[in-house]
Amino acid sequence: MENDKMVRAKEVYIKSDPSSGKMVILKEDAEAKRYFLMFVGDAEFAAIAKEQGLVDPRRPLTHQLYLSIIDKLPVEFVRVEITHMKEDTFFASVVFNADGVEHRMDSRPSDGVALALNRKIPIMVNEKLFRRELTQEEIEEYEGIVKTIKF
Amino acid sequence: MENDKMVRAKEVYIKSDPSSGKMVILKEDAEAKRYFLMFVGDAEFAAIAKEQGLVDPRRPLTHQLYLSIIDKLPVEFVRVEITHMKEDTFFASVVFNADGVEHRMDSRPSDGVALALNRKIPIMVNEKLFRRELTQEEIEEYEGIVKTIKF
Repeated sequence: MENDKMVRAKEVYIKSDPSSGKMVILKEDAEAKRYFLMFVGDAEFAAIAKEQGLVDPRRPLTHQLYLSIIDKLPVEFVRVEITHMKEDTFFASVVFNADGVEHRMDSRPSDGVALALNRKIPIMVNEKLFRRELTQEEIEEYEGIVKTIKF
Repeated sequence: MENDKMVRAKEVYIKSDPSSGKMVILKEDAEAKRYFLMFVGDAEFAAIAKEQGLVDPRRPLTHQLYLSIIDKLPVEFVRVEITHMKEDTFFASVVFNADGVEHRMDSRPSDGVALALNRKIPIMVNEKLFRRELTQEEIEEYEGIVKTIKF
């Protein structure tokens, strides 16, 4: 993993589909043929949609509460890294400086993406996690696998 | 509101019901006849259930991610207050010290309860928000009102 190439994903798309559920898709840029896709829960989907200005919740969401607390503290968020998949689950890290010391915290990728959009920091994705454009059959097979994920 | 009596809720119960949804119930103690009841979303329910040791998510939930970040910082959480209801929505505050300065942050009560359980700090509820034991008819009427809440 240490030697894997990390690629910056500048484009974040969300998609809600009655049959397959809620998805987040990351791409290097709008024209890129490869992409990273993950399925997310309702709250994580709402948090990302909020950061994109697509919804305006009346009350602070969980990550807004904590970011408003963190705003009172000497913290600088650096980047989010989506690093690997293990047992059908994607893993991510949030990299931040607290009082000048760099830390790396284990995170679900969905939380990482919402945080990155809020703080306008880079989202880096392990190149190996990108997929090329899939055929419909491949998409169905993939969704079948990913939908077995439990948290 | 300034003069309202705040009562400490030592007991936190959660309940999931197919027809009415997911609820959190707060009581002063196990024998108390009055209680505070709120409906919560799936993610907030999971966060509270996790803090109660009822579920063990494989990956960090949103509030765990942020609390693990905050653990690197000079923060002390003091208490959570559920203060009032406005337009069918309950409001809460998280009180904390950062670098010796006290702050008060606007919060959804469900986030506040999960945080309070995690940090073992008091949950204070405005006495006016407590309800006595309800009849079945009253419960249905109340649920009808509360279920119209949008966030």
